[in-house]
Amino acid sequence: MTNADDRELRDAVLEANRLIPKAGLAALTWGNVSGVDRAAGIYLIKPSGVAYDALTADLLVPVDLETGRVVSGRLKPSVDSETHRAFYLRWPSIGGITHTHSTHAVAFAQARRDVPVLGTTHADTFSGPIRVTRDLTEPECADEYEFNTARAIIELVGGDAEATATPAALAANHGPFTWGKDPGKSVEHAIVCEAVAEMALKTLALNPAAAAPPWLLDRHYTRKHGAGAYYGNDPAQ
Amino acid sequence: MTNADDRELRDAVLEANRLIPKAGLAALTWGNVSGVDRAAGIYLIKPSGVAYDALTADLLVPVDLETGRVVSGRLKPSVDSETHRAFYLRWPSIGGITHTHSTHAVAFAQARRDVPVLGTTHADTFSGPIRVTRDLTEPECADEYEFNTARAIIELVGGDAEATATPAALAANHGPFTWGKDPGKSVEHAIVCEAVAEMALKTLALNPAAAAPPWLLDRHYTRKHGAGAYYGNDPAQ
Amino acid sequence: MTNADDRELRDAVLEANRLIPKAGLAALTWGNVSGVDRAAGIYLIKPSGVAYDALTADLLVPVDLETGRVVSGRLKPSVDSETHRAFYLRWPSIGGITHTHSTHAVAFAQARRDVPVLGTTHADTFSGPIRVTRDLTEPECADEYEFNTARAIIELVGGDAEATATPAALAANHGPFTWGKDPGKSVEHAIVCEAVAEMALKTLALNPAAAAPPWLLDRHYTRKHGAGAYYGNDPAQ
Amino acid sequence: MTNADDRELRDAVLEANRLIPKAGLAALTWGNVSGVDRAAGIYLIKPSGVAYDALTADLLVPVDLETGRVVSGRLKPSVDSETHRAFYLRWPSIGGITHTHSTHAVAFAQARRDVPVLGTTHADTFSGPIRVTRDLTEPECADEYEFNTARAIIELVGGDAEATATPAALAANHGPFTWGKDPGKSVEHAIVCEAVAEMALKTLALNPAAAAPPWLLDRHYTRKHGAGAYYGNDPAQ
Repeated sequence: MTNADDRELRDAVLEANRLIPKAGLAALTWGNVSGVDRAAGIYLIKPSGVAYDALTADLLVPVDLETGRVVSGRLKPSVDSETHRAFYLRWPSIGGITHTHSTHAVAFAQARRDVPVLGTTHADTFSGPIRVTRDLTEPECADEYEFNTARAIIELVGGDAEATATPAALAANHGPFTWGKDPGKSVEHAIVCEAVAEMALKTLALNPAAAAPPWLLDRHYTRKHGAGAYYGNDPAQ
Repeated sequence: MTNADDRELRDAVLEANRLIPKAGLAALTWGNVSGVDRAAGIYLIKPSGVAYDALTADLLVPVDLETGRVVSGRLKPSVDSETHRAFYLRWPSIGGITHTHSTHAVAFAQARRDVPVLGTTHADTFSGPIRVTRDLTEPECADEYEFNTARAIIELVGGDAEATATPAALAANHGPFTWGKDPGKSVEHAIVCEAVAEMALKTLALNPAAAAPPWLLDRHYTRKHGAGAYYGNDPAQ
Repeated sequence: MTNADDRELRDAVLEANRLIPKAGLAALTWGNVSGVDRAAGIYLIKPSGVAYDALTADLLVPVDLETGRVVSGRLKPSVDSETHRAFYLRWPSIGGITHTHSTHAVAFAQARRDVPVLGTTHADTFSGPIRVTRDLTEPECADEYEFNTARAIIELVGGDAEATATPAALAANHGPFTWGKDPGKSVEHAIVCEAVAEMALKTLALNPAAAAPPWLLDRHYTRKHGAGAYYGNDPAQ
Repeated sequence: MTNADDRELRDAVLEANRLIPKAGLAALTWGNVSGVDRAAGIYLIKPSGVAYDALTADLLVPVDLETGRVVSGRLKPSVDSETHRAFYLRWPSIGGITHTHSTHAVAFAQARRDVPVLGTTHADTFSGPIRVTRDLTEPECADEYEFNTARAIIELVGGDAEATATPAALAANHGPFTWGKDPGKSVEHAIVCEAVAEMALKTLALNPAAAAPPWLLDRHYTRKHGAGAYYGNDPAQ
């Protein structure tokens, strides 16, 4: 990892972390974003318990991807660091991870209900429901809890292709984890996850049997993703 | 279209687009507003996937009303451009169109329930319920999807007079489209659509059988619309 | 009315109107506040259809308390002017009136349910429930509609003592009207009305049979009102 | 109490009070925070009925911990002063107390339902449910009402250890009281109390039988509290 690379990643991880309070996804010091430099074998993550408005790029904690040990500095990483690490190890395509305690996504996680695909807002970003994990067992909570949290999510989501198709999951009775090709995309997915959870909760209040035709959902997902996508403009233009 | 006209319309369309995030009607790059210059046979619409705070009047995309082709510039229009075009072709009185993913209007669209007229806030702007379209069929989603979205709405709403009386509809499992005599009015109708959807959802939670006397609703609609209207002041004074 | 008095009242009415959007009690140009100068026999009210950020003290419309006619200027008063006038004529103690379309108060008005007294937040300000009027009849809507809106509220509330004890009511399928000794107090009551309506809606979702012991409510009301009140500090100190 | 100590406590109490409106925990002048100087036998509390934006450190009212009498100045303390005093006398570990009328916590208080522990957001801060008191009796409301409010909470919560483990309770049909080792922690607990009440209300709407495995909750509580805690960084570093 060159210093220049490190600076670029630090800035991206900092900016993504700052979006958490700005987008109303968590109160106080809750939530965290990380970004990975796979060539260097390191990811940068929010330090534990630091307020967002006190966060600077230099306070981000570099962690070794193989060992989970802090590479430099005196700050401890987020307590969820091992959850992030397990995701990076399992899913080679992802470059950033976000964890929040956003209200409506947490409500689904606490209710142990998947966020169903009820419309195009959801299908524009996620190819399927945002699912809730099984319970962790008592031994899984007692030892290597954070790593086991990731394992339950990975068990639910599957491999790299599935993780890319629906880059979000809910840890039961806990809250949402989202990911993406870089830190910014991971927090964008956290914003969408919360928005569609709120829409779903309110839709179900109006119609407990709400559903959507699969061909409409497919059309929206493929408008934005894959070889036939036609949404958006090339930012380089 | 003279340059002066173009500039005025560009500014109006820009300002209306900026109201979408300001009024909390959509997150990220969701939603879009267009405005039409019927003499020039062109409408201006938000480019696809551009962030609202990066949007400028010059980035708006001019589209030919007859062909749907981009008239100039390198940016692609909103993916919903063909929906806008179909509305302009069908309803000669309208001058602007807004599409959002506002939370409560989407909840009704996903629940496939019309937003009922439960009070004067609704009746001040819309002469009837904000209705939800039928499902699009699989072939309609496969080919010319965006144009077919408009067709389902037009089928539901009717002609120019009906579109003017209730300038809003919900695409099933998608979200609200609103329109008006100019871009600013179309986004104002999007604000009202979301407000009355939220009020209706909460009213129905308190009383699932809620309804309103038709003569009260008529009085409010005619206070603001038609020959006997007495609401408002002439801005020219 | 001396010019100095007029200026003081104009500033108070302007400030109270500006609180409506600031406190989130209405979108667009909805809502209005007035204040009365009983010695001069005039009340000042928001002009019809003017945006809050374009409102100035000089744009407020002076209306004759006896005749309902505009005293000076070219702007029309709020369409609800006659509702305000009827309240001032009936209740000599009040000095200001506020009308909003705040979401949760409207939900109760549209559901035709009184906002029940479920706790001390309500009892601190209102001595009883915030009640909903009966329906207006078709003739009442056809002729002198705004004056008849006030009549239905007055019929429900009663005389000056009752209006002072619970300075708020809901026009069925319309929304809240609140009043107070001056314009500022009337808008403060509109803020409380919306807050307690939201709390009540959420309380009823958790417990449809919620209720509160009358002695607790009485204690809170009398802490703040009447001869034994001990809440607050004299601002003059 | 030296002047220097007094200044530090005044600033902490002022800052904590200002967080109440900033975090949306109360409208108008509702709510109050106090902080105690046990060596001096005095606590500082918000004056009654003063607007938050008019509050300064010098306006805070010093009250004698033993007698409940104002030590200096002309302002009356918050009407809830005696509730604060009873908590300080009963629980020697606490250094600050916050009372708010936050919407969702009030909804649980008015519904007389405990806020159940449905997930890790709750368990990160509170070791058990946030419980609602019994009703106060008519005599308890008639005489020494504010002191009796505290007695009902103390009866419910228990001693210093229990108060430290779950630093929050709901006064029935009233609202939340929270506390902590200093004024800042007490208002932080008020923020968490409101957040988990909102999450719980929405969880119960999705699943009325929602619950969480005790070992997950224990793990989260002990991650942040007690001898084995590993959350956070030493701010001194």
